[in-house]
Amino acid sequence: MNEKGRITIPTDMDVIEDTIKLSEKWGADAVRDCDGTSFPIELKDAGLKVYATYYTTRKDNAWARANPDEIQQMYLMTPLCTASEETLRIPLMKGLYRDMLTPNTRDDITRWWEVVDRSTGEPLPVSHWHYEEQTGEVVIKTVPFHDYTVSFLAYIMWDPVHMYNAIVNQWQGVEHQITFDVRQPKTHAYTLERLKKFIEEHPYVNVLRFTTFFHQFTLVFDELAREKYVDWYGYSASVSPYILEQFEKEAGYPFRPEYIIDQGYYNNQYRIPSREFKDFQAFQRREVRKIVKEMVDITHEYGKEAMMFLGDHWIGTEPFMGEFKEMGLDAVVGSVGNGSTLRLISDIDGVSYTEGRLLPYFFPDTFHEGGDPVKEAKVNWVTARRAILRKPIDRIGYGGYLKLALDFPEFVDYVESVCREFRELYDNIKGCVPYCVKRVAVLNCWGKMRAWGCHMVHHAIYFRQNYSYSGIIEALSGAPYDVRFISFDDLKADPGLLKEIDVLINVGDADTAHTGGEWWCDPEISSLIKQFIYEGGGIIGVGEPCAHQANGHFFQLSNVFGVEEERGFTLGYDKYNWESHSHFITEDIKDRVDFGEGKKNIYALEGTTVLVGTDSSGERDVQLAVNSFGGGRAVYISGLPYSFENSRLLHRAILWSAGDEDSLHQWFSSNYNVDVHAYPENGKYCVVNNTYEPQSTVVYKGDGSSFSLDLDANQILWYEIGG
Amino acid sequence: MNEKGRITIPTDMDVIEDTIKLSEKWGADAVRDCDGTSFPIELKDAGLKVYATYYTTRKDNAWARANPDEIQQMYLMTPLCTASEETLRIPLMKGLYRDMLTPNTRDDITRWWEVVDRSTGEPLPVSHWHYEEQTGEVVIKTVPFHDYTVSFLAYIMWDPVHMYNAIVNQWQGVEHQITFDVRQPKTHAYTLERLKKFIEEHPYVNVLRFTTFFHQFTLVFDELAREKYVDWYGYSASVSPYILEQFEKEAGYPFRPEYIIDQGYYNNQYRIPSREFKDFQAFQRREVRKIVKEMVDITHEYGKEAMMFLGDHWIGTEPFMGEFKEMGLDAVVGSVGNGSTLRLISDIDGVSYTEGRLLPYFFPDTFHEGGDPVKEAKVNWVTARRAILRKPIDRIGYGGYLKLALDFPEFVDYVESVCREFRELYDNIKGCVPYCVKRVAVLNCWGKMRAWGCHMVHHAIYFRQNYSYSGIIEALSGAPYDVRFISFDDLKADPGLLKEIDVLINVGDADTAHTGGEWWCDPEISSLIKQFIYEGGGIIGVGEPCAHQANGHFFQLSNVFGVEEERGFTLGYDKYNWESHSHFITEDIKDRVDFGEGKKNIYALEGTTVLVGTDSSGERDVQLAVNSFGGGRAVYISGLPYSFENSRLLHRAILWSAGDEDSLHQWFSSNYNVDVHAYPENGKYCVVNNTYEPQSTVVYKGDGSSFSLDLDANQILWYEIGG
Repeated sequence: MNEKGRITIPTDMDVIEDTIKLSEKWGADAVRDCDGTSFPIELKDAGLKVYATYYTTRKDNAWARANPDEIQQMYLMTPLCTASEETLRIPLMKGLYRDMLTPNTRDDITRWWEVVDRSTGEPLPVSHWHYEEQTGEVVIKTVPFHDYTVSFLAYIMWDPVHMYNAIVNQWQGVEHQITFDVRQPKTHAYTLERLKKFIEEHPYVNVLRFTTFFHQFTLVFDELAREKYVDWYGYSASVSPYILEQFEKEAGYPFRPEYIIDQGYYNNQYRIPSREFKDFQAFQRREVRKIVKEMVDITHEYGKEAMMFLGDHWIGTEPFMGEFKEMGLDAVVGSVGNGSTLRLISDIDGVSYTEGRLLPYFFPDTFHEGGDPVKEAKVNWVTARRAILRKPIDRIGYGGYLKLALDFPEFVDYVESVCREFRELYDNIKGCVPYCVKRVAVLNCWGKMRAWGCHMVHHAIYFRQNYSYSGIIEALSGAPYDVRFISFDDLKADPGLLKEIDVLINVGDADTAHTGGEWWCDPEISSLIKQFIYEGGGIIGVGEPCAHQANGHFFQLSNVFGVEEERGFTLGYDKYNWESHSHFITEDIKDRVDFGEGKKNIYALEGTTVLVGTDSSGERDVQLAVNSFGGGRAVYISGLPYSFENSRLLHRAILWSAGDEDSLHQWFSSNYNVDVHAYPENGKYCVVNNTYEPQSTVVYKGDGSSFSLDLDANQILWYEIGG
Repeated sequence: MNEKGRITIPTDMDVIEDTIKLSEKWGADAVRDCDGTSFPIELKDAGLKVYATYYTTRKDNAWARANPDEIQQMYLMTPLCTASEETLRIPLMKGLYRDMLTPNTRDDITRWWEVVDRSTGEPLPVSHWHYEEQTGEVVIKTVPFHDYTVSFLAYIMWDPVHMYNAIVNQWQGVEHQITFDVRQPKTHAYTLERLKKFIEEHPYVNVLRFTTFFHQFTLVFDELAREKYVDWYGYSASVSPYILEQFEKEAGYPFRPEYIIDQGYYNNQYRIPSREFKDFQAFQRREVRKIVKEMVDITHEYGKEAMMFLGDHWIGTEPFMGEFKEMGLDAVVGSVGNGSTLRLISDIDGVSYTEGRLLPYFFPDTFHEGGDPVKEAKVNWVTARRAILRKPIDRIGYGGYLKLALDFPEFVDYVESVCREFRELYDNIKGCVPYCVKRVAVLNCWGKMRAWGCHMVHHAIYFRQNYSYSGIIEALSGAPYDVRFISFDDLKADPGLLKEIDVLINVGDADTAHTGGEWWCDPEISSLIKQFIYEGGGIIGVGEPCAHQANGHFFQLSNVFGVEEERGFTLGYDKYNWESHSHFITEDIKDRVDFGEGKKNIYALEGTTVLVGTDSSGERDVQLAVNSFGGGRAVYISGLPYSFENSRLLHRAILWSAGDEDSLHQWFSSNYNVDVHAYPENGKYCVVNNTYEPQSTVVYKGDGSSFSLDLDANQILWYEIGG
């Protein structure tokens, strides 16, 4: 086994010796700087590959100040205001951090701003409003008691991530870094020169770690400098009149601010994307690709590697879309919060290697007196390992202030064990496709563009509204399936796609992009999916799958799933099917299934088999049910937060819906706290204890033969398949 | 005090002596028969007014059989079926009780039936389907994997209420009574003669108790004779080609079965009514009125009174609509389940008197060994009494088999006390308007047509989906307000309506007729209501008030209520306003507010005052919040099941939203288990203990002066205002 390699550690001016010591202990072969740290030149010959963070869009206020017209802009919408008279004044900056944003009055506001009557949904003629510079208010001629909003462009005078880092780390007196827009002509030209200069001035650097390219995901702060709005997938800070005029030309229809503003929802991931927003995203992908390619080419000309950080100014790169491979990047690095975010990195194609930055980040929020970084590290590693075993990243690393970590020797030891274990598993599995029992597709409005990232708002953050759904994605990230993410657009374009799939999953709340909303009223879509199931396919619906109120039902596939949601409209119908039945799917459930938030008011139709017919309070409420439809099978689950027990339930649901219960005892652990992963190409398999306690299990091999096994806490054991 | 009168008791052939004894004990002055009982002629001179149930549409199978074309019909929709090939066969009677219904193939099925492609929402050309009489199936030429339903007319071969009574009472070998359609020409003419004959043959009868007129509310049974579908307000069994051709002529547009079928929802009360259905209801009201009037006139010609039972075949009479008064009825009688159903009767205008049939009905389901009819009677009386004290019915009565009640002497005694108490309170309050502290209007799509009956499916039946909302209506039924029910149509017709109102209430789930759905996207409506509040009005929203996803919000008055529902679309917005504050509205809450089902995912906007910011599990979730909007005030409540404590909360919310907290201590009891009602016109007030335990309270009079008082369980005490 390799005793060294595949590990990146952070460094800083004040930890030169420690960096060398730790790199030996952990087997690190690369070193990096971070936002707020500097690379000590003394380390350049330490035998470590050197990464340098490179900020394409900031850390050059001189340029930004000299070219204020090319500072990055973003679209913002004021809160909704109700007119009480025939004139209404809306202060643009109410609720926003003034030092961060400055309204753009340089460009023609009558073209780029929009006042919308939100009572009618119609934009106002420009003759009905004007901007008063001295008060910062838009003055509107109104219909009394209608609601109004102003959509406007603002310059980003303090880079949101720089601001975030400054606040979290309590940096005092730091100069606000202005974000400039690399897509604009002067800055574009300057950027290429600036990059060359940087490389030339840092000859010891091996890897340019772009942090990132051109457009920050949406992140805005309020008057009190508290986070106000965040969307890790948000495109609203990737705009400027310069860009939008190009878009308009390409799209062939006039641009409206509303395409970005989207009623104040900013086209977030829950919104069913409009045609215009999809057009805009595609345009951005193509344009971003062009300039990234230029920068990568320069990097390569200097014999350096180009690595992209998946975060910060990553908007428009979209690693799962076709344009990405054409950028020519060498590597992607990203933060690993769990299995889903691991796959968000490791599933990226078209780069030489991927790297995961493990948690915790060496920041004072964790590394303070009384903090428990070991616990965070353990949870992070064990959680990520499941997914790594399905599709490994090529390297792991850490970020932040190394100095902080040094005060926690137990942490330093634990990381050493992680590094060793990572190298071992990587050697065992790299380059081969693990055994997959089924081909599973998650169907939503975003498809592969939001692969593994669906149900995320700000990376892997918990929300009461998402954990019962993202649990499905998290379970899939570490389970033996060939997983893909498809969109309704994909199905329209290629109905044959379903031939490559065993089980479809539709998960989320009604009328969101995750379930599809009105898409289910497209008879082409609904028929296609019904046919797929009728002819033997499986479908799993979680939450309010295929739900949109129309045509006499809310669940558009109510007769496929055999369940429906009571929204008042069917209270007159008597319901007799509540009794729970034992079933293959629930055989490993110890007590009650944890449905998370679950769903209220679901009832089963006649003939459906209810598996759980009461909610946690004992009230009649179908939480889990199965149904046959022609030759296929459907499973309804009201919600499924991530847990080992629930992952097992999902596994059984996938097998059952695919009509393949017989495959259960292949590469299988009787104890659901333990996973078995097989790599037939390499002739290896492993048994891995995902918990922090010892576990006993029966391990089933691919031929169905089995043996008993006891594992230590967190232990992973490797075997030869023939052995 | 009157020792006799205002009481009706049931009788039967086997209880002649007991009827007389009981009528003396209870002070009854009227006697009645019931479905399944007969009036003993011996009682005709017992000094009791005699009611005779009269069945306008049944109990004459000879006529029905001789005129099969005039048997009452109803519209039915088959369950949705998915085509798996190019032909689909849908059996019409699947899921229906065969002896009850026979498809109408007598009339032109290509005109009166409809096959709908529920994948597209479009009806099929008649050339694409036909009916196969011998199999009872409709054969459809399909697009594979589209969904289809058949809408068809069927004759009602067993009157649904007769069937229900037969099943509940286990009547054996009873001949199924066929429902005939009094609106059709032959039966219409026959009915008038039949009525005359009945009156002539029953000269001792004083009151014709019509049970009821022409059209049964929707009630259908499944193959196992279990209730399949019920809607106490349903119009789907009031149709026939004969009637519909008239409707078509009046409406001026072609009739479609879909106007009645409504995707299988049959225009139930939760559905936002379509223009066509409202037209149809209006047409029915006018036509029903005509024939009722003829029957009432005949009754009067014979010197008898005409009483209508509010139930069974009451469809089209609509007691709160203008046509009702024109029918000339003398009285209405109905079943009293609670305060709301009491007001459903007592608020009816245009009759000489109203009568409430108290519970329990003397049926074996309650009056059996081990049954506790006293408990049921107590709950019923104390519940109804609250509402009687606001708006009294003129009489009370009982129904069922008197013989069954005789075995429960304690029950007989309790009823005696109820009768005495009823007469006392009636004498004290009849004919005067009680003190009302505020004018409150419930705003929904139905307005006065569903006054007091909104949120009801089958009379006062509990549903998990309605109790948190009907609790508001129940609270209003016994509280000191001038209550009215208004519709969005009313507001469109007369915006000035709001001038007569202090507080608006909008209660229910999103996109139901109770809250209004798309109505809130009508700027005329939304502006009118915002103006009303801005200028000082109050509004209380319960559940998902004014909710419809559009224009950047779900709660269309989100900035009025200061709350919004998180449906995923605003997860990116940080929320900081969760802290609960003490407030006038919650001052009498002892522990936690019971919000019933409550609502998940409600959050407060900046500036809103949260009163309860966590749900029952302690999770952040706004359940109660208040907000100012201009000069007015808004209260958001996530749900409010009926209880004395919650009624107090609502009372305080009404006063607060109206800006009139100072009126709290007028005609007020410090203990919310005790009510104070004042009748200034009569110079009286009462203090009433609504519980089954003794209570102590401080009673506040109209001038704010107060005194302490102890009350026995259930006690009501009367005082002179000047005393």
